[in-house]
Amino acid sequence: MALDKDEVATRVLAIAERLLEEGGSAQLQARTIAREAGVSVGSIYNLFGDLADLHRAVNMTLLDRLGAAGAEAMRDMQARGVVRPRERLIALANAYIAFVERHAGAWSALLAFNRGPAAGSHPSWYTERLDTLFAIIARVLDDGGYGLDPVRRDLAARALWSSVHGIVTSGYVGAGRGAARDEIRAQVDILVECFTAGLEAIRDGKAEAR
Amino acid sequence: MALDKDEVATRVLAIAERLLEEGGSAQLQARTIAREAGVSVGSIYNLFGDLADLHRAVNMTLLDRLGAAGAEAMRDMQARGVVRPRERLIALANAYIAFVERHAGAWSALLAFNRGPAAGSHPSWYTERLDTLFAIIARVLDDGGYGLDPVRRDLAARALWSSVHGIVTSGYVGAGRGAARDEIRAQVDILVECFTAGLEAIRDGKAEAR
Repeated sequence: MALDKDEVATRVLAIAERLLEEGGSAQLQARTIAREAGVSVGSIYNLFGDLADLHRAVNMTLLDRLGAAGAEAMRDMQARGVVRPRERLIALANAYIAFVERHAGAWSALLAFNRGPAAGSHPSWYTERLDTLFAIIARVLDDGGYGLDPVRRDLAARALWSSVHGIVTSGYVGAGRGAARDEIRAQVDILVECFTAGLEAIRDGKAEAR
Repeated sequence: MALDKDEVATRVLAIAERLLEEGGSAQLQARTIAREAGVSVGSIYNLFGDLADLHRAVNMTLLDRLGAAGAEAMRDMQARGVVRPRERLIALANAYIAFVERHAGAWSALLAFNRGPAAGSHPSWYTERLDTLFAIIARVLDDGGYGLDPVRRDLAARALWSSVHGIVTSGYVGAGRGAARDEIRAQVDILVECFTAGLEAIRDGKAEAR
């Protein structure tokens, strides 16, 4: 049987993502994927290297979609004339929350993957995708007129990203689903409020803590 | 053989923590623990209920030690006359970073546990331990004189906790170990600097973003 490589790869990726969504990397078994895709185990390895490479390929599609969700949120704000960094950062955080809710299992598997042994050797196309996400936040900070030099602006963008990420991933502890979402939104709100007010105060030389 | 219940429980907890440290919850097998502790599988279930309960008991000892590390950092600052909230929050974050580095595997397993199905039914003694950790940060904010009402102070404490947690757990992506620690410290530093400057500016009515 002649196989269309691209078509098979797309099918294998979709199956792999569903397995990751359902049960994390423990579910990512070559034999299961091969059976569901109707191809041999060998074709999967030919297409993706090993299972870590396949997981990384799924992660890449997730990061691409998260980047697209961020870009869409920015376009939407542009259209509605939302320019204040505080509102923009909260809208971006909300886009992230919605994405994590939609892909809870696969996103959790991505985080576990990034903490695992394979993470040390991320190829450049992987870290470039993370940089694309940070760049969206960096642009908001630039537009905010905080007068940050590029190094400090990028550091602030990564710190905001990690902080929102921490709020979203630890916000579910000890709370029901609805209460958890309210708690997450309230934490994001006070974080962004204080962070942007702090950037302003530091720019204006008003911060005692400097 | 007559067994001292407390002694066996302590031994089982230590073995369980080591297994979690080495390989996460997949390693937490009743038969392995029973063999290493020299007791029957039945005694383990008698002592701890099921494996989720045992995992929760290990988590409790981890949270207790983290709380102790936080309290020690506070006593140390008291002794050295460190009163500025910015310095105190950074010292607390450093205590957290050191704790996570010392218990990387078991802490990662705790986070996975808290995200898992058992987390929805945390008993009160579990969430009380989390509240104890938040209370340390809340005290620093109180001492900082930001004029926050208790609800907003506690929300700010939880947001700071989650943010630092996010920075620590996602800071390792795409970086070597030494570079990762520098990146984590730099992100914590800008977070705490901006957050505390923001609290001051908001208190003083200087924040445009209000």
